[in-house]
Amino acid sequence: MRLRNKPWVPELIEAHQDLIIQAPQTDLAGHWAKRFANPALPIELEIGSGKGQFIIGMAQAHPEINYIAMELQSAAIGMILQKQIDLKLPNLQLFLGDGAAVTEFFAPGEISNLYLNFSDPWPKNRHAKRRLTYSTFLAQYHQILKAEGQLRFKTDNQGLFEYSLQSLNASGWLFDFISLDLHRSERQASNVETEYEQKFAAKGQVIYALDAHFEG
Amino acid sequence: MRLRNKPWVPELIEAHQDLIIQAPQTDLAGHWAKRFANPALPIELEIGSGKGQFIIGMAQAHPEINYIAMELQSAAIGMILQKQIDLKLPNLQLFLGDGAAVTEFFAPGEISNLYLNFSDPWPKNRHAKRRLTYSTFLAQYHQILKAEGQLRFKTDNQGLFEYSLQSLNASGWLFDFISLDLHRSERQASNVETEYEQKFAAKGQVIYALDAHFEG
Repeated sequence: MRLRNKPWVPELIEAHQDLIIQAPQTDLAGHWAKRFANPALPIELEIGSGKGQFIIGMAQAHPEINYIAMELQSAAIGMILQKQIDLKLPNLQLFLGDGAAVTEFFAPGEISNLYLNFSDPWPKNRHAKRRLTYSTFLAQYHQILKAEGQLRFKTDNQGLFEYSLQSLNASGWLFDFISLDLHRSERQASNVETEYEQKFAAKGQVIYALDAHFEG
Repeated sequence: MRLRNKPWVPELIEAHQDLIIQAPQTDLAGHWAKRFANPALPIELEIGSGKGQFIIGMAQAHPEINYIAMELQSAAIGMILQKQIDLKLPNLQLFLGDGAAVTEFFAPGEISNLYLNFSDPWPKNRHAKRRLTYSTFLAQYHQILKAEGQLRFKTDNQGLFEYSLQSLNASGWLFDFISLDLHRSERQASNVETEYEQKFAAKGQVIYALDAHFEG
């Protein structure tokens, strides 16, 4: 969703360059590990972090993994930054940038797992190319992911999930996990929810989920 | 589901060998066309026809296609036979036999499209090999289907649908269609329902559906 502009965000970003990076910036790709307290940990990326409940929850639950929260809206990432200034999680870095161009920002194999949560469904067929599971995006994810690295996708949007199953299948990805009702599956015990997910699941909305890796 | 044994069925089958074939029988494979009024039409096969509402509905709706109803239970196929004796549909043949061994009964490429409707979900992991979308069955379907011929699958069972998506994907099949709520999709206008489907959909149960063809 689009948030109202927050005029205080640019200044906050400027003051916390240890926690957040802003695109465009050269020399990002291949050097993300150095931005974390422990550069030896695997790096996982969320594209479209919104207000950050998921990525902060993941970083807290998994100190053995370094996380990057990527978000295009400065108003949203500003809210994550505010929380991170308090939390000072050593394994979380923020990135204000466009997930549609990840190969510019990450080196081949730099990312261990990639998360897409409740991405914009772009329901009209003529907008299919904008869906973050469209073939051209999948090719970019494949490039930045390690071999066997997973795309982990959740949505409440039936049409987007149907489309994504077909798109991944057609692009040579192998499904490692599929749930057509995540919140009533065994995985729910370890599922970290987004703000949106929590709200819509509470209304009885089914949540769909899949993990897939590129097989070729 | 298992039906009570019907002692009158063997005699009925014996009396209507123009409408029904019983396995084992030699020289079936490659010669199905000859059993139909118009041998030039494409042949579609349903594995597990139950009481036959789907296959009879399809045969009535599509006179341009020849249909084979395959069913393992004589009590069930006896009920289809009773209806067919009245209807005399020229494009419907019945086959009492085991869908787990289709390559014995059909020649390579003999089948244009294959239907699995509400197959037994075999929910326990140790029974996965019995599910009709298990890899060994998929290999058989691929063998008897024409190039680009589709497997068309419907179920209300969430676990079986999740499994089938993964199994087809892993076996080199390409999804041409996926619906996670068939009865509220555009395809419902032309969807011929099974007895079971009608009953469970009326209770609000979601029906899942997919079409896939082998891509390799």
